[in-house]
Amino acid sequence: MSDKTRILLCGAGAVGVYFCGRMAQGGMVDVSVLCRSDYDVVKEKGYHVSSPAGDFDFHPAGIYRSAAEYPGDADYIIVTSKVLPEVDVPAMIRAAVRPHTAIVLIQNGIEIEKTIVSAFPDNELISSIAYIGVTRTAPGMIVHTDSGKLKFGVFPNGISAKADKLAQLFSSGKIVATITPEIMRARWEKLLWNVPFNPISVLTQSDTARIMADPECLQLVRSVMLEVAALADADGWTLPETLIDELLEFTRNFPPYKPSMYVDFLNKRPMEIEAIVGNVVRIAERLHVSVPHIFSIYAMLKRLAGA
Amino acid sequence: MSDKTRILLCGAGAVGVYFCGRMAQGGMVDVSVLCRSDYDVVKEKGYHVSSPAGDFDFHPAGIYRSAAEYPGDADYIIVTSKVLPEVDVPAMIRAAVRPHTAIVLIQNGIEIEKTIVSAFPDNELISSIAYIGVTRTAPGMIVHTDSGKLKFGVFPNGISAKADKLAQLFSSGKIVATITPEIMRARWEKLLWNVPFNPISVLTQSDTARIMADPECLQLVRSVMLEVAALADADGWTLPETLIDELLEFTRNFPPYKPSMYVDFLNKRPMEIEAIVGNVVRIAERLHVSVPHIFSIYAMLKRLAGA
Repeated sequence: MSDKTRILLCGAGAVGVYFCGRMAQGGMVDVSVLCRSDYDVVKEKGYHVSSPAGDFDFHPAGIYRSAAEYPGDADYIIVTSKVLPEVDVPAMIRAAVRPHTAIVLIQNGIEIEKTIVSAFPDNELISSIAYIGVTRTAPGMIVHTDSGKLKFGVFPNGISAKADKLAQLFSSGKIVATITPEIMRARWEKLLWNVPFNPISVLTQSDTARIMADPECLQLVRSVMLEVAALADADGWTLPETLIDELLEFTRNFPPYKPSMYVDFLNKRPMEIEAIVGNVVRIAERLHVSVPHIFSIYAMLKRLAGA
Repeated sequence: MSDKTRILLCGAGAVGVYFCGRMAQGGMVDVSVLCRSDYDVVKEKGYHVSSPAGDFDFHPAGIYRSAAEYPGDADYIIVTSKVLPEVDVPAMIRAAVRPHTAIVLIQNGIEIEKTIVSAFPDNELISSIAYIGVTRTAPGMIVHTDSGKLKFGVFPNGISAKADKLAQLFSSGKIVATITPEIMRARWEKLLWNVPFNPISVLTQSDTARIMADPECLQLVRSVMLEVAALADADGWTLPETLIDELLEFTRNFPPYKPSMYVDFLNKRPMEIEAIVGNVVRIAERLHVSVPHIFSIYAMLKRLAGA
């Protein structure tokens, strides 16, 4: 083994391959990947990433079908799988988790850390949000289109030497990685956009431009955002008062955009309904906050997904 | 002309043909129809209605492409067209309206009478709700499947000699036609079912059985019903407290059913969104009643319809 930091990437979809591929370019890490469906192609040719920031190839240090095959001693296990009830992350990574391994979640939603904390209570857990537009177009082929930033912190709050080190590693690969001692605040801020736009785009079969151009839909988006903000507040995270207007203005000026959940729906892939919306409804019940707009959306989205 | 009561049916779809065809069987009326798309077929062969209560043929006394062609002096103009922003009922019937003509609306929704009252302030207006399952399967071909009752009264309230007479005419054709002095109450009671089930079935692509079997969707249905009941109350019509549970129980025991709006959606036909949901939202604004669940549904349904 080299002296490089050892990374094991689990859930080698577009997001994980982009961020870890960039990190590998920095030269300070050995990145291995757990990879099932694309295994043969990646084993033979590695990944190819096309990106406005420069195309690159990414040849992982090791490619494995399961954590049990991984012979290393990972400093970080980076999880970028989708958050779905049927994806058991602890089972997926357990065989590779060592006492000193930090587990890093680069995933959407809220309260997604619970199962990891329960399964690995003694491991450091770093929770991260990604801001990126990136798609897998074929086995081993990744197309990066927009942005590409990370924000992370120690769960449930704070920073640490391992989080600092991780930021350096991403920076070495030219990824803008910001550390925050308040990762839960960052999650709520991201939910402020995700809770309205992801489900409403699916239920109305509309991109962001069509939603923004429809007065009633825009009013619904704002009502949902106000409910998310009230809930964040009840959870101890008072969001900036101007943030809703800023997000709406940003979305209005952005080109027509299909949120990830709508892309999943159009491609008949499972949607992250529980992580992004269902958990919000359950937090609202627990904290006794009324969220009728969010509940309406949740109930219908869940039914539509099962239809 | 005979001494029979003269009826002109406008919007000769399945509902109108069924009820007026049955009425014609009673022998007390001459029924003429305004008929555009099916004109040639109906002119040649009339209508054929298949029904569990007995199949029958219906040969209208006259068949016209527009009200201006109608040579008669109608005692009743019965309007059964769908309530859509693009359907201008006053323009459709104006040429046939005489001072003594009673205008009869057999249509869905709420506040659908306004445009008629404005256009014909001196004519008697009878507002009616239909309870029926009936479909046009081909030009001139009508299939009746369920129920087949009418409830009507003078708009905005009360009864009248003309309403009484109309009930007799329907009865002569073996139609159960009930007169109520409170037709607005009847409309609110019907909305209690229509406002949740019509839009939710479209947005979730689900029939009533799937909606009833989904705990969150059922909770949403109940929340919408409570909002409709609160709104009816604010409008002066206190609905029976047990009605929501009765409707839910009825729906639970009914075979899986696709509400009319969902059938329209599946057939890419325009939906009665404004008559059934939009007008409810506008009444809520006017009466300052909070209806967040209904508004969520309305905003998304409207966007989906325009998608």
